[in-house]
Amino acid sequence: MDTKSPASFQEKAVELLLSDADKIARLIRVQMDHLTMPQCPLYEEVLDTQMFGLSREIDFAVKLGLIEREQGKSILDTLEKELSLLHEAYTNR
Amino acid sequence: MDTKSPASFQEKAVELLLSDADKIARLIRVQMDHLTMPQCPLYEEVLDTQMFGLSREIDFAVKLGLIEREQGKSILDTLEKELSLLHEAYTNR
Repeated sequence: MDTKSPASFQEKAVELLLSDADKIARLIRVQMDHLTMPQCPLYEEVLDTQMFGLSREIDFAVKLGLIEREQGKSILDTLEKELSLLHEAYTNR
Repeated sequence: MDTKSPASFQEKAVELLLSDADKIARLIRVQMDHLTMPQCPLYEEVLDTQMFGLSREIDFAVKLGLIEREQGKSILDTLEKELSLLHEAYTNR
């Protein structure tokens, strides 16, 4: 295991969480782009599973003191907003 | 955020992961204890969800260099073995 400074753990943690959040955001965008194709289902379960996974990572990082609770919450809130836009768009298509 | 030494992050990470693993192990044991009651279902979905959450936490900790990959694998393997004993017991009851 590498010897790392506490700061490097914290930076790396934020980097990893943002990268995982970005993967979900891209999943959401792909689904948005396929809105006009009525045969494409909404992969709600996939998105829910990924959101749950990310929220567990964030909880873990918060408990370890690697990120602030507020920062973790804001990462999830941003995704939740994109998700609800997607749901709305599906409902209204 | 507290200032922490790298070692304290690593110790805390292992502590947290083992405590989460222990929660799942207790869930498995509770289900084992209810084997004789035919009306009690096997909460596979609950266990699967918890296992998925733990595996995401472990991946995250491994990527951060907080625990060794082998150590994370061994935590999951131990639980998988208990889970398969539970499935076996349910199948044969």
